[in-house]
Amino acid sequence: MQIAIVLYDRFTALDAVGPYETLGRLPGAETVFIGERTGPVRTDTGALALVADKTLAEVARPDLVVVPGGPGQSAQMENETLLGWLRAADATSTWTTSVCTGSLLLAAAGLLNGRRATSHWLALDVLGRLGARPTGERVVFDGKYVTAAGVSSGIDMGLTLLGRIAGDEQARTVQLMTEYDPRPPYDAGSPHKAPAHLVEKCREDSRF
Amino acid sequence: MQIAIVLYDRFTALDAVGPYETLGRLPGAETVFIGERTGPVRTDTGALALVADKTLAEVARPDLVVVPGGPGQSAQMENETLLGWLRAADATSTWTTSVCTGSLLLAAAGLLNGRRATSHWLALDVLGRLGARPTGERVVFDGKYVTAAGVSSGIDMGLTLLGRIAGDEQARTVQLMTEYDPRPPYDAGSPHKAPAHLVEKCREDSRF
Repeated sequence: MQIAIVLYDRFTALDAVGPYETLGRLPGAETVFIGERTGPVRTDTGALALVADKTLAEVARPDLVVVPGGPGQSAQMENETLLGWLRAADATSTWTTSVCTGSLLLAAAGLLNGRRATSHWLALDVLGRLGARPTGERVVFDGKYVTAAGVSSGIDMGLTLLGRIAGDEQARTVQLMTEYDPRPPYDAGSPHKAPAHLVEKCREDSRF
Repeated sequence: MQIAIVLYDRFTALDAVGPYETLGRLPGAETVFIGERTGPVRTDTGALALVADKTLAEVARPDLVVVPGGPGQSAQMENETLLGWLRAADATSTWTTSVCTGSLLLAAAGLLNGRRATSHWLALDVLGRLGARPTGERVVFDGKYVTAAGVSSGIDMGLTLLGRIAGDEQARTVQLMTEYDPRPPYDAGSPHKAPAHLVEKCREDSRF
């Protein structure tokens, strides 16, 4: 199985690395990071670059597509090179997936029309306006389309999908080896749990 | 505050990206990825490279040091260029931290003698033999030394340390924006929770 993780300028690193570190441990799978051009692609903070090893054109028929999100997503919403690639790859993919605002790119490509899907909590309204049916779940399956909520949820998506593809035993092994026994020091990881003034502040600061 | 994240061949990506995505959101902080040489540094799977933007020598006095782990750590245990840099950086750092087997490098540099510390669960015995006092906790503070358990625990460490440095409000905001409300699909993330046969299999497969 070939897993293609799409990079673009100002993506969020953990969106891509969460699924990579879990799904990418699928026995026999080949993971490849791809972009419009090969070479370093800067993340949203500017302080980190991940390398695209192949171009979109070089990876035409991946079995599994992962589209991360991040502030840079908005600049890609009318990028026909990327959207066209997504449509073409989706035509033959076994799984088409996203993390965070990556789902807005899938929706912009017309792949989520009428489908249950999710995104970063700040982007759920936009996701609906793009034709999907947003849900508040952390990981959403609708046929072969798998979307995850904000940033860190890509780890949960990766493990869940790994279990579907390779079985529970393999997914549990990866969970154990990555010691994924989370202990957040706070309980503020969703708008339903965080203090209301923080939720409001994030809404005010967001671009959506 | 300058945050230096050390890269070396065959490190584990999430070890570095977890703290980057949390601690790196510290207002006013500059995060820099560093290595012996600048340029792409391959992770343990070979399928991903992160870019070292500066050399160790160029970042002599970071305020906060993060050392990730990964299979490549074993090849660094007698690398005096790296160990010497760790000792020198530690002499002036405010915080010296590690994720996963990164703590074995701190210990090899002589920085954890007699200190409470942790590592990947498979590496706790080795950590003890290197002079530290291993604990089973996920995130361990001993003075300015902060060590985290396996791979994904760097997210918890990053948020916890962010709270110490910038206050709970800032850490909760980062938790909310990264939607860190984990829902692992299994409960197998520690050797105390995973099925015994999986724990045994991981021990047999490990290098320690």
